[in-house]
Amino acid sequence: MRMMGIRILFIDPIGTTVFDKDMRNYLNEYKRKDTEIRTMSLPKGPKHLEYYSYCALVIPEVLRIVRKAEKENFDAVIIGCFYDPGLHEAREVTNMIVTAPCESSVLIASALGHKFSIIVGRKKWIPLMMRNVINYGLKDRLTSFKAIGLGVYDFHKDEEETKRRLINAAREAIAEGAEVLILGCTIFFGFYKELQKIVGVPVIDPVIASLKYAELLVEVKKISGWSHSKVYEYEPPPESEIKAWKLEL
Amino acid sequence: MRMMGIRILFIDPIGTTVFDKDMRNYLNEYKRKDTEIRTMSLPKGPKHLEYYSYCALVIPEVLRIVRKAEKENFDAVIIGCFYDPGLHEAREVTNMIVTAPCESSVLIASALGHKFSIIVGRKKWIPLMMRNVINYGLKDRLTSFKAIGLGVYDFHKDEEETKRRLINAAREAIAEGAEVLILGCTIFFGFYKELQKIVGVPVIDPVIASLKYAELLVEVKKISGWSHSKVYEYEPPPESEIKAWKLEL
Amino acid sequence: MRMMGIRILFIDPIGTTVFDKDMRNYLNEYKRKDTEIRTMSLPKGPKHLEYYSYCALVIPEVLRIVRKAEKENFDAVIIGCFYDPGLHEAREVTNMIVTAPCESSVLIASALGHKFSIIVGRKKWIPLMMRNVINYGLKDRLTSFKAIGLGVYDFHKDEEETKRRLINAAREAIAEGAEVLILGCTIFFGFYKELQKIVGVPVIDPVIASLKYAELLVEVKKISGWSHSKVYEYEPPPESEIKAWKLEL
Amino acid sequence: MRMMGIRILFIDPIGTTVFDKDMRNYLNEYKRKDTEIRTMSLPKGPKHLEYYSYCALVIPEVLRIVRKAEKENFDAVIIGCFYDPGLHEAREVTNMIVTAPCESSVLIASALGHKFSIIVGRKKWIPLMMRNVINYGLKDRLTSFKAIGLGVYDFHKDEEETKRRLINAAREAIAEGAEVLILGCTIFFGFYKELQKIVGVPVIDPVIASLKYAELLVEVKKISGWSHSKVYEYEPPPESEIKAWKLEL
Amino acid sequence: MRMMGIRILFIDPIGTTVFDKDMRNYLNEYKRKDTEIRTMSLPKGPKHLEYYSYCALVIPEVLRIVRKAEKENFDAVIIGCFYDPGLHEAREVTNMIVTAPCESSVLIASALGHKFSIIVGRKKWIPLMMRNVINYGLKDRLTSFKAIGLGVYDFHKDEEETKRRLINAAREAIAEGAEVLILGCTIFFGFYKELQKIVGVPVIDPVIASLKYAELLVEVKKISGWSHSKVYEYEPPPESEIKAWKLEL
Amino acid sequence: MRMMGIRILFIDPIGTTVFDKDMRNYLNEYKRKDTEIRTMSLPKGPKHLEYYSYCALVIPEVLRIVRKAEKENFDAVIIGCFYDPGLHEAREVTNMIVTAPCESSVLIASALGHKFSIIVGRKKWIPLMMRNVINYGLKDRLTSFKAIGLGVYDFHKDEEETKRRLINAAREAIAEGAEVLILGCTIFFGFYKELQKIVGVPVIDPVIASLKYAELLVEVKKISGWSHSKVYEYEPPPESEIKAWKLEL
Repeated sequence: MRMMGIRILFIDPIGTTVFDKDMRNYLNEYKRKDTEIRTMSLPKGPKHLEYYSYCALVIPEVLRIVRKAEKENFDAVIIGCFYDPGLHEAREVTNMIVTAPCESSVLIASALGHKFSIIVGRKKWIPLMMRNVINYGLKDRLTSFKAIGLGVYDFHKDEEETKRRLINAAREAIAEGAEVLILGCTIFFGFYKELQKIVGVPVIDPVIASLKYAELLVEVKKISGWSHSKVYEYEPPPESEIKAWKLEL
Repeated sequence: MRMMGIRILFIDPIGTTVFDKDMRNYLNEYKRKDTEIRTMSLPKGPKHLEYYSYCALVIPEVLRIVRKAEKENFDAVIIGCFYDPGLHEAREVTNMIVTAPCESSVLIASALGHKFSIIVGRKKWIPLMMRNVINYGLKDRLTSFKAIGLGVYDFHKDEEETKRRLINAAREAIAEGAEVLILGCTIFFGFYKELQKIVGVPVIDPVIASLKYAELLVEVKKISGWSHSKVYEYEPPPESEIKAWKLEL
Repeated sequence: MRMMGIRILFIDPIGTTVFDKDMRNYLNEYKRKDTEIRTMSLPKGPKHLEYYSYCALVIPEVLRIVRKAEKENFDAVIIGCFYDPGLHEAREVTNMIVTAPCESSVLIASALGHKFSIIVGRKKWIPLMMRNVINYGLKDRLTSFKAIGLGVYDFHKDEEETKRRLINAAREAIAEGAEVLILGCTIFFGFYKELQKIVGVPVIDPVIASLKYAELLVEVKKISGWSHSKVYEYEPPPESEIKAWKLEL
Repeated sequence: MRMMGIRILFIDPIGTTVFDKDMRNYLNEYKRKDTEIRTMSLPKGPKHLEYYSYCALVIPEVLRIVRKAEKENFDAVIIGCFYDPGLHEAREVTNMIVTAPCESSVLIASALGHKFSIIVGRKKWIPLMMRNVINYGLKDRLTSFKAIGLGVYDFHKDEEETKRRLINAAREAIAEGAEVLILGCTIFFGFYKELQKIVGVPVIDPVIASLKYAELLVEVKKISGWSHSKVYEYEPPPESEIKAWKLEL
Repeated sequence: MRMMGIRILFIDPIGTTVFDKDMRNYLNEYKRKDTEIRTMSLPKGPKHLEYYSYCALVIPEVLRIVRKAEKENFDAVIIGCFYDPGLHEAREVTNMIVTAPCESSVLIASALGHKFSIIVGRKKWIPLMMRNVINYGLKDRLTSFKAIGLGVYDFHKDEEETKRRLINAAREAIAEGAEVLILGCTIFFGFYKELQKIVGVPVIDPVIASLKYAELLVEVKKISGWSHSKVYEYEPPPESEIKAWKLEL
Repeated sequence: MRMMGIRILFIDPIGTTVFDKDMRNYLNEYKRKDTEIRTMSLPKGPKHLEYYSYCALVIPEVLRIVRKAEKENFDAVIIGCFYDPGLHEAREVTNMIVTAPCESSVLIASALGHKFSIIVGRKKWIPLMMRNVINYGLKDRLTSFKAIGLGVYDFHKDEEETKRRLINAAREAIAEGAEVLILGCTIFFGFYKELQKIVGVPVIDPVIASLKYAELLVEVKKISGWSHSKVYEYEPPPESEIKAWKLEL
């Protein structure tokens, strides 16, 4: 079965380029040999997505980028925020593969242990993420959310403090029954490795998870024709409407 | 307990004014005496929201309107689409009451019978609406979704045909155990009355439901101070960030 | 849309008049201007309903009062105990609106935040109330029950102690994820206001909630014809049987 | 381990003696050798319990009979209606064993197959029975309710017709996945034997089930001291209150 | 209704005879007068079943024993491990009654209180037991699992220490809402009696429970013909295949 | 990130070599370039696994093969039956990756649509598969099981008939809401491609799915150290016990 290289666009859906380089290096470290990664962030917009309205603000631009990427022959797009903002909408308006960190992480974690916990920054994040876990159908596999009381921009300020809190949260989660841990923010990148060595269970980094799931889905699409179904949930709008109504898509 | 009149803005979140007048008349027919209604639609955008990406496109504008309405001293905003687009995000960015048709309808239906069914236009609509029903916690009260195979703009084209299909769907739902019916689209306005007479169970019109729930919530806010909680789910973003990042909110 | 005044009977379903006056004053403080309230308690019977068998003892008399109220042209009856005793049976034997504190409280709380906790007196109360929450379909919206270790007649003995315990329970519930709190006993009347000021989230008083829901349902019945469905759950027994068998209803 | 004979009171909780003799004979046919059965019905009240309010009317009298039976040294009481009316309340006010047909049937069916269906008379019965199945925790074991469109007093009028409808309902249920069937009314007594021969799966008669579960629970109480727990759900009211308030219990 | 004596084989599915005598004495103490018990363990295999793979290793031998017991005219087999290993498979290959400790315990506990907790040795045991509780449909009746941090062979080493830990676990479970406790290992035999005296709620011994349920099911099979259903879940393999393929069954 | 080739053992856990060659060719067609596949079946045992007891019979041998494969430096084992027999036990006794068709299929299907249906041969298969779907946590994503009324050895006898039945089942499932279909037996190999062309939604072949998930998990293990967690569910038995007790593992 022949398959050529995979072209993936990783969107950091926030209005700052501050994480772009780190994210690109990180992804390049973990990609398959024949995968080509491009990363981008948004020209404007909130600089983090901790609030649900911030997510709502960036989704239209994410959808435009997704449709543009399809024209540029990308195979897949990763929407790089653990809220998975616009994941379902994006799959509706494109024929490419679209993945996102939370969905990919829980699907990988599911095969590694029976119960997982998700470690997040602030309690505010939990209701929306819980809604996603429920929507992905995996609520019964979830042991708990653990919040470490830090915002996105605090994680890399004092990394030792972040580590300390992650270790505490991880140990609490394991004591409650978690067998696998998921870091519930893409900006936790880099922490998983040491953490999993210390606590002794797999710790899923959501950036790597979304990359690997994108590669998996592109591969099965190429070899077996499996892709996001186009009935019901992801049934696409007619291109004629998009044109007639001048929708910025 | 004194309370003055209630000012409500009904947003028809689509880029056409075609339903504005009908909707305003309809709302005025059902409002409380001391409620004042304003209706508006969007300056541009999709002319219906059957696709999930269309919803995503309009939410930012809905949020802007919501925040503007608060400055204009409205007490409540109704987001007039049965997908309840942006309902949670809107509650995050305002101190006003915000309601939407699906949530209001299921909360009223819940007190009228044990099981309800929702009649929709096309099957495409069901996954997102089901997600909402699950999110509202009321999945175990739902008997079924019934699709009548018509799009939003078909409902009022051949009203006799629409009625015929609604009656069939209603009877099927009742046979399956539904005790209350909900019309799952605001553009079904006007059909409920005759339908409920024919099938003999309450048929909830979602426009009226969202209006009545808005009035209820404004009233309890005024007399008891109950409003959308500001912790977790609806914790608002800092105004300083909104300003600093020039977010169009 | 014209609607005349609303006549509501509030039944305190216990065999003592000790709370009648306070309850009447309380209700009158919160009713709509054109609502007329009558309150009553039972001629005999248990003086609180903490035990499930006590509820069972009073329900037949509640049903008789409900049917009598209908003949006296009341629009609605409120069954004033947070166990909602006889709520479903009452709706079966009358065409009036019937509401009760627990159902009304959870339906209002549902629109104010994603998760709520219910604060009760004693742990004994929880299994039956949990059963009701499950029956109302809203278990997934419930964070927890919190018991403060006081019986009904203790609440107003040392109100400072009650307040202190309520505050502790409220803070625990919020820490666990609750965004809205519900006071799980009608005899908590009066405590909500100060409590919500102190803990910073909406605190639902179940008496007010049941009043407001009664007014809402009477209103929608008058303007839209929506009332408790008469199929399945609330299908009424034939009057002929009631008469033939001399049922005291 | 020695245990003496078991004394069981079977209450047919309706205001007619019409089924008393048949029921006594039926029970005597299936009881253990050293079990002694007494049957009784109510002095007055509804002659069937198809309506939920009818159940509510008889429960106080059932509770009084239960308490009287305890003084007369019965070991157990069976509340002989498939709605299990007053089951939990009765366990609250006595130290005897109390069983009821629905609970006993589903607990036996659970060990005989993975999924069961319940065949009932009229659709009206289903919501309350479903609530009980949910309360007993066994909803996920239930395939379906099947209504044969007959009231309690129709079952033995034209037994051939009843049989025909039972067979049809049974076959439908099996086709849907049911492995065990439960007859959802005590007045179905006698039908199970032929039915299970015809359809080839176990058909639970709820009268026999409630008898066997009563004997089981009395036995384990005598030999192991296991009885209805007296904390939370079944915590009994203080006898002093019952006396002071002259409660008819 | 005549029924002769019941013959039951209790299999301790481990490769050691060390518990055989104690178990036989224990069972004989609790059996019905006309029940005859035989106990046996396996000729080889793991000496405890704490690991899931150990269970898998013994199941084929358990199935062979079950089929042999049927030829020897036993009425029932009890698979004596709280993981209930091979319970469903055994019911597939025999017409005898088969019970096991976990299923029997939860079905008895269900009638004694609304919520139960299961006390186990080590946390390792919980995922598989939880899966069983879910499979038995009773997850919503479960308050919690409590692990006392001891392996099977520790229980009777220092019985005072075991007792102390059981009491602590029991009290924690009751504080969390448990009304009934279940000892989650057959090797806890003997502890239940004192424990339930101390903590004041019923404590189910799973060995006794499985014996009593076996006797119950044999009895209802004899008098009513109810046995494990032979459609779907327990549909048996054709004897012809078993012979042709020389399956050791 | 360097990673060498992947060595995978595919076990067809039945006592016949009849499918070995076809399966090997099929897997070789879909494997990654640098994956090396070996296939094997069992020396003896049932020739299909339609009965749950048959599964139980083969699991010990599967576990032995798994442990042998680890010594032979395989990276992963696939247990090639849609019942996923021994999947959890195998993960307990090895440090390799282990996958199986059902788990892999549902995890891939989950990212391709919201709801999936599983098409099986006979109704007998459904209870065990449903248990697995529930255990994998994805019951809410499942629309239905559809049985086509054929046994494993019928599938390739009259392939046109099989196709016809698959198409009918697929169309029914889609009408019920399924967006993705899964073929619920490894012996359906080869049918997916034409079927998905005809019905227009992705049709997951479970053999390919288990291969792709095995490759994914081996890859993430090599690059990120994520593997089956060794706490709780998959905590391994001590090698010392295995040796001392001469367990054939």
